[in-house]
Amino acid sequence: MIRNVAIIGLGLLGGSIGLAIEEHAPDITTTGFDRNPKTRATAAKRSLVGTVCDTASEAVANADLVILCVPVGAMEEAAAGMREALPKAAIISDVGSSKQSVGEALAKALPDHTIIPAHPVAGTEQSGPDAGFASLFTNRWCILTPSETASTEAVQSVSDFWTKLGANVEVMDAEHHDLVLAVTSHIPHLIAFTIVGTASDLEEVTRSEVIKYSAGGFRDFTRIAASDPVMWRDVFLSNKSAVLEMLGRFSEDLTALQRAIRSGDGDALHELFSRTRAIRRQVIEEGQDDDRPDFGREDH
Amino acid sequence: MIRNVAIIGLGLLGGSIGLAIEEHAPDITTTGFDRNPKTRATAAKRSLVGTVCDTASEAVANADLVILCVPVGAMEEAAAGMREALPKAAIISDVGSSKQSVGEALAKALPDHTIIPAHPVAGTEQSGPDAGFASLFTNRWCILTPSETASTEAVQSVSDFWTKLGANVEVMDAEHHDLVLAVTSHIPHLIAFTIVGTASDLEEVTRSEVIKYSAGGFRDFTRIAASDPVMWRDVFLSNKSAVLEMLGRFSEDLTALQRAIRSGDGDALHELFSRTRAIRRQVIEEGQDDDRPDFGREDH
Ligand SMILES: NC(=O)c1ccc[n+]([C@@H]2O[C@H](COP(=O)([O-])OP(=O)(O)OC[C@H]3O[C@@H](n4cnc5c(N)ncnc54)[C@H](OP(=O)(O)O)[C@@H]3O)[C@@H](O)[C@H]2O)c1
Ligand SMILES: NC(=O)c1ccc[n+]([C@@H]2O[C@H](COP(=O)([O-])OP(=O)(O)OC[C@H]3O[C@@H](n4cnc5c(N)ncnc54)[C@H](OP(=O)(O)O)[C@@H]3O)[C@@H](O)[C@H]2O)c1
Repeated sequence: MIRNVAIIGLGLLGGSIGLAIEEHAPDITTTGFDRNPKTRATAAKRSLVGTVCDTASEAVANADLVILCVPVGAMEEAAAGMREALPKAAIISDVGSSKQSVGEALAKALPDHTIIPAHPVAGTEQSGPDAGFASLFTNRWCILTPSETASTEAVQSVSDFWTKLGANVEVMDAEHHDLVLAVTSHIPHLIAFTIVGTASDLEEVTRSEVIKYSAGGFRDFTRIAASDPVMWRDVFLSNKSAVLEMLGRFSEDLTALQRAIRSGDGDALHELFSRTRAIRRQVIEEGQDDDRPDFGREDH
Repeated sequence: MIRNVAIIGLGLLGGSIGLAIEEHAPDITTTGFDRNPKTRATAAKRSLVGTVCDTASEAVANADLVILCVPVGAMEEAAAGMREALPKAAIISDVGSSKQSVGEALAKALPDHTIIPAHPVAGTEQSGPDAGFASLFTNRWCILTPSETASTEAVQSVSDFWTKLGANVEVMDAEHHDLVLAVTSHIPHLIAFTIVGTASDLEEVTRSEVIKYSAGGFRDFTRIAASDPVMWRDVFLSNKSAVLEMLGRFSEDLTALQRAIRSGDGDALHELFSRTRAIRRQVIEEGQDDDRPDFGREDH
């Protein structure tokens, strides 16, 4: 049974976990730490956790579950920094967007602890201590990637925890996670960053034109491309091989489409554009997006 | 002064124009035609226009402005089909997403008429007679691409018309329009169609996984990739050279990022990801998107 949760990193993910616990599992006490004093002050003001501590050691001292909510590249350092203060029985988990490298980093920093890496597939383009909200995980999936030798009870505890916060839980191996998320998250972000960069560097088309006429589709990409630079730098560096693999597939398919456009092959274009519609329907049916046209911008 | 508007093609764009006229300029009478009898029936039921006609000739007989709202590839045929019935003084316009080829097609089909091509940069992923709504053009830009010899009064009339419907109007040459829209609309759609296609064709990752974990970013792309296949086939075929030009730039930039990931160049990644954030802010400041995180999905 998890009674005391320590959250390290009080940004979007850490803050949302704190608020979700307060809403869905108020019997659990929460402590939190962030290296940034301003973030700690905001966290205290917004009551993201029950107690905001001034050191990681203080925050984890009584925890049965510690969740690292820092950028992927900061996991090892954050874990090492609390080693001495960690209760022996505490389970260590995280929310990092890539899982093989994080699993390895945590195992290295905390070789004697039970580590159950996790990734709630939920987020927004905002970050920082003002960005979190209690319903972030509702009806979203949380993927656990325990090593083969991880204790079944620890996996169950972390799974129960996320279920309480409103998420659906899935267990898979870290390598597969990294491949799946390369497709459903990392490549979409990479493409969005790229096209927004391309558009802002053109000579023939001014930046003000790009912005004025962005309602033609481009504006959607600007949202994703506004995501946190540090977080995403770390994701691409830590999930390099799966990202490069999937990027290769994408580039091949893009080249094929380019050829179809060049040769005026309308049937090939129509065939692809018809197939992709079905995926949207399934995304909506599975409750992973709603069916309001244009994301409901019109209703606003 | 425009008193009678005929709308040919009663889908998303045609229907929205009809409804916007009713809301913003109720003194203008509207007639409409669509080649599809079911669409005509729905248009009549939803009162998309004042009178739904059974032929294009009937619809245009008394018009001072005729707006073609059919796929870009159908413009020439639709224009030619109404030639005999067109009043001599009627201005012909359209809403096609590419403008050089449409301008040429309309000039060819109606050599003796005043043609003022237009493109309201507004839309959703939905199409058909049920998709339209009166506020589609509010605060969006409408681009006019008259030829150099077009009458100034006719340009002014069409400009005033779109201003009445709530749009901001800009005039530019068709070639520049096609380059700008390749960046802000056509390439974003092409990329979205491609990545959704890539994701659904993988062997290592199942389609059900792609859908389950789509909240990581992928779901945004599925919305755009659910757009009408015929419309988009026609856009790419009719704006081939600008699309291929911009696709070349995008591919170069993507290759550079790929290299940065491969070589672990975190600074290059961080630098790009920081720059793209500013564009999002400008899109919001310019009123082309709102600032709710995650498109306000959470508020729903
Ligand atoms: N954003 C998403 O959509 C999303 C979704 C799923 C998973 N994730 C994952 O969740 C994690 C956190 O992301 P986020 O969006 O919550 O980022 P965030 O809002 O930027 O929050 C991260 C916080 O961690 C702090 N921090 C950095 N290093 C630290 C350390 N060594 N010790 C203590 N605190 C430290 C940061 O402080 P500074 O301000 O000083 O850097 C910042 O306040 C990342 O691993 C990310 O991959 C994100
Ligand atoms: N959707 C957008 O976001 C957007 C934005 C700006 C501009 N545009 C442009 O607007 C135009 C219309 O797009 P839309 O989204 O409104 O498409 P839509 O909802 O599919 O409507 C087009 C309608 O035109 C009909 N049609 C086709 N050929 C015709 C003909 N020869 N005569 C009469 N009716 C004909 C179609 O009937 P069938 O069902 O029989 O084909 C359909 O009902 C396109 O040129 C597009 O490029 C679209």
